[in-house]
Amino acid sequence: MTNPPAPHSPSSTELDHSAEVLGIGGHLAPETDQQSYRKRMQRRQDIQRQRVGERDKEKGLILVFTGHGKGKTTAALGLALRTLGHGEHVAVVQFIKGSWQPGEAKALKVFGDALSWHAFGEGFTWTTQDRERDQQLVSKAWQQALIYLHSNTHKLVVLDEVNVAMKLGYLKVEEVLGGITERPPLTHVALTGRGAPKELIERADLVTEMTLVHHPFKEQGVKAQAGIEF
Amino acid sequence: MTNPPAPHSPSSTELDHSAEVLGIGGHLAPETDQQSYRKRMQRRQDIQRQRVGERDKEKGLILVFTGHGKGKTTAALGLALRTLGHGEHVAVVQFIKGSWQPGEAKALKVFGDALSWHAFGEGFTWTTQDRERDQQLVSKAWQQALIYLHSNTHKLVVLDEVNVAMKLGYLKVEEVLGGITERPPLTHVALTGRGAPKELIERADLVTEMTLVHHPFKEQGVKAQAGIEF
Repeated sequence: MTNPPAPHSPSSTELDHSAEVLGIGGHLAPETDQQSYRKRMQRRQDIQRQRVGERDKEKGLILVFTGHGKGKTTAALGLALRTLGHGEHVAVVQFIKGSWQPGEAKALKVFGDALSWHAFGEGFTWTTQDRERDQQLVSKAWQQALIYLHSNTHKLVVLDEVNVAMKLGYLKVEEVLGGITERPPLTHVALTGRGAPKELIERADLVTEMTLVHHPFKEQGVKAQAGIEF
Repeated sequence: MTNPPAPHSPSSTELDHSAEVLGIGGHLAPETDQQSYRKRMQRRQDIQRQRVGERDKEKGLILVFTGHGKGKTTAALGLALRTLGHGEHVAVVQFIKGSWQPGEAKALKVFGDALSWHAFGEGFTWTTQDRERDQQLVSKAWQQALIYLHSNTHKLVVLDEVNVAMKLGYLKVEEVLGGITERPPLTHVALTGRGAPKELIERADLVTEMTLVHHPFKEQGVKAQAGIEF
């Protein structure tokens, strides 16, 4: 729930409006002299400080990366990297995976024990061609995920492609919501993959949809390349 | 340009259609027995092989991550990580940056010489309050970027927040297009930041727009947290 704003302090919406009116500066600002430009940006900075001051709660977040665009898993790995950079531990559980050797996993070995990486899944559904086997591996992945979600040893738990596992009917959304709800209050969890269910989207703290604006790989006949797609 | 398909081979659009009709399997497939399920997935696999077989060109790609959602820089860093995992060198040039110490940079030190990291920019426009200084730093960043773009020593060059530098009027889109066009044919370049100019989007090989679906941080009063926002 939102705390009521302190008396006479501008609301979050008022701050947003003032920030928008002042703009983001650079050559988008109308001033031609440094003195009046500085004045505008000082006012903008005051507003930014008030905006940040309003946000003082620390909590573990539910982050969802979904959509048909590129960058869902890579964005989650970027979060992992940041978290490792702050000296925290990270666990990654991959639910569904193509048969390519992921470049990420090789690179991440340099982090040693700070990063735990579990690749379940033996390939796409058209590679395995076996629902029972897929189901077993998803269940194993989920059991592994629950261990991390409940242990309080890892600051961030990445459930990679878990949205696809739910979409394929191998994992119930209620089960996932139950598992992530029971985690320690400061643990972040990132869930990736196309087709995130709406119950998850409603529960999440941050949902980013990756939209494919332009992808002429196919038309150009460009093959999947190391570093970009695997 | 697209090569004409071999005679009698199905077109890319036909393959897409067949793939869609067969579906992605799992419990979304209607079959109740393993034998007919396997048959469906074998047909899907044949199509996947034809789809991949169509794509045989290797080329350096122009990748753009833009939009108001989270994950633009992190997606580019995920690509960096993959590229490093394949034993290649990566250069990151940051054009505009907040004054927070980026967690990513700390974590990436473990890669040593394989990763070159250059942070230009001394903060947001409302922190610096000085267009001339901003301009100087953007120009320096661009000079540094050009060195990497033209050297053929780095498989991937990340131009972080370069879209914002263009939007603020500190860097001309023609200059950026010129610089990236002259790079070696197998070098990938990733450009991040809100407001990618349309000339860049038209030239890019892959554009992902990060859309903010749901972001109740502000309403919840949750502060910027280590690993998530810095």
